[in-house]
Amino acid sequence: MPQTVRIALDAMGGDFGPKVTIAGAALALERRPDSRFLLVGDESAIRAELNRHARLAERAEVRHAAVSVRMDDKPSQALRSGRRVSSMWLAIEAVKKGDADVAISAGNTGALMAMAKVCLHTMARVDRPALACLWPTLRGQSVVLDVGASLGANASHLVDLAIMGAAMARVMLNLARPTVGLLNVGAEEIKGIEEVKAASTMLRDLNLPGFDYRGFVEGDGIGKGVVDVVVTPDGFTGNIALKTAEGTAAQIAAYLKQAMGGTLLAKLGYVLAQGAFRELRAKMDTRATNGGVFLGLEGIVIKSHGGADSVGFARAIEIGHEMAGGDLLNRIRDTVALAHRLREHDGADQTSPPRETAQ
Amino acid sequence: MPQTVRIALDAMGGDFGPKVTIAGAALALERRPDSRFLLVGDESAIRAELNRHARLAERAEVRHAAVSVRMDDKPSQALRSGRRVSSMWLAIEAVKKGDADVAISAGNTGALMAMAKVCLHTMARVDRPALACLWPTLRGQSVVLDVGASLGANASHLVDLAIMGAAMARVMLNLARPTVGLLNVGAEEIKGIEEVKAASTMLRDLNLPGFDYRGFVEGDGIGKGVVDVVVTPDGFTGNIALKTAEGTAAQIAAYLKQAMGGTLLAKLGYVLAQGAFRELRAKMDTRATNGGVFLGLEGIVIKSHGGADSVGFARAIEIGHEMAGGDLLNRIRDTVALAHRLREHDGADQTSPPRETAQ
Repeated sequence: MPQTVRIALDAMGGDFGPKVTIAGAALALERRPDSRFLLVGDESAIRAELNRHARLAERAEVRHAAVSVRMDDKPSQALRSGRRVSSMWLAIEAVKKGDADVAISAGNTGALMAMAKVCLHTMARVDRPALACLWPTLRGQSVVLDVGASLGANASHLVDLAIMGAAMARVMLNLARPTVGLLNVGAEEIKGIEEVKAASTMLRDLNLPGFDYRGFVEGDGIGKGVVDVVVTPDGFTGNIALKTAEGTAAQIAAYLKQAMGGTLLAKLGYVLAQGAFRELRAKMDTRATNGGVFLGLEGIVIKSHGGADSVGFARAIEIGHEMAGGDLLNRIRDTVALAHRLREHDGADQTSPPRETAQ
Repeated sequence: MPQTVRIALDAMGGDFGPKVTIAGAALALERRPDSRFLLVGDESAIRAELNRHARLAERAEVRHAAVSVRMDDKPSQALRSGRRVSSMWLAIEAVKKGDADVAISAGNTGALMAMAKVCLHTMARVDRPALACLWPTLRGQSVVLDVGASLGANASHLVDLAIMGAAMARVMLNLARPTVGLLNVGAEEIKGIEEVKAASTMLRDLNLPGFDYRGFVEGDGIGKGVVDVVVTPDGFTGNIALKTAEGTAAQIAAYLKQAMGGTLLAKLGYVLAQGAFRELRAKMDTRATNGGVFLGLEGIVIKSHGGADSVGFARAIEIGHEMAGGDLLNRIRDTVALAHRLREHDGADQTSPPRETAQ
């Protein structure tokens, strides 16, 4: 573990730019005093904010970038106009060059993924990178991946996702041996996507080190926290599940607000129970889990929600800090290599028929 | 609309059998006094429960069935052992024979779908049936389909789902012209499944009567109620979204319970605000939307949650009652036929390239 964690920030990313990213960095530094920052973006805009944060200024270097990727740039546009010159690219490149341990951006997801792939490259033997998130559960938190809107994963990629998610859970959730499940729709005969079934068979047969594979998980099992790592059938399904859960939480928060503002008694009850409501709000605060992690790249890149405030952005930085601290990439590399070697040895890729497995 | 709505019940389905189904029917009859019931299942078990419900007994006929489909029977097993003889089959068959306007079962979904398909047949030109549900939203309720765990829909099927969902929304939500959206993951270049994009183009081009197509909806738009009908990319994704939302609601309910039971002040606040909490519980009560509707069959079949209590089962019966009352099947048949005619005329099936569309 490095003595200091060096964090490259795309200071221009997100809906609010340096106002939020610099304030977020200052907050994160309070909690993680061993951080150093490389702030990439429009120098004068960054300096203007940095003037308010003396402690951060001491621990930060500013790197000017003339171009900012816009929130509505398409990935191809972003690459065309921002490659080698944008704050997003230069933050990622700092990781590649060894100037930083992790890059963080609240810029648009598609552009960030495209630049991270072009700049850092996908890990050997990994089909493609994935976006992983922390999902609050009744037991604490779980890692859920892929939530990155990509389509159609094959069984071998789902095994890689299990390996990468487990590595992240070890680092982020401090678990020696996280449990892993595959998201599916129940255990009936007609149900279940072939690739998910095949991945389940592979995960049981391979019995890889570092995690316990526990079979299928249904959608309502995520919030219960039945496993530490949930592998979704593909990023498309995962993204829809994530957004649907966020929508449901927002909906219930709105119901609750309506209900507690309704009558005088309700309002009085609310005042008395305000400690309890504060506790509830803290549990439902999506800022606490802000920060998606791109896994499967030769470097660590964190994506913050574009609309995050400084508290949320600071949390994304903290996630980056924790992910950079571990020996994450080597672990993933080794386990992915082992899985592929075992499968080539067993011929499992070619010959194992998909078998039904259940929780 | 028939003077009386004739409802065939699989009295043996669900985790609790006649105890819940008969009590549920009695409740539903109180609210819908124009119902008549055909109670199918083990006659002595049904009669034992029916003795407690004199008003229901007056409006019900009992039809003995020697076989009950078990909750864990695979669809193929259920068909083998239960075809023509099980309570599930005979309830569906009553619809086919014209003895009932709708069939309702809390039995297992796979078996019910398989039997409904074999007995009632899929509508002409409809690729396959779908499972639709009512989803509580901040604006009221929406229809979401397919949530039935089936895989891989093509664009033409998604158009049929839009037609069927809109027809259901007209009946269930009393809307003259419901709005319809396709569930997707955002509007970026790299995002969106080809079939969903192609369906979006078709829905815009066809401009079918009876609903307004509004483009893509993201997962967090469902709970907001941004459209009246949400068409999912396939039943697999839809089922995962539904279960994930249910899981999130249960999770927040658990947080709330913990928080309000924590301190004396919180407990006191809870007592004062109990009216508000009652209101909240009513909004979060999944029993209020219990009852999935199989659409795309030549007859109406409703699936209740297996674990529903009599209040939940009564709600599924009410949904069946409402669905049977309208001119639903003819409307679906006509609009599906029109869509196919228009597409053949335009050659849209073959030649329209998928175009990107946005909300």
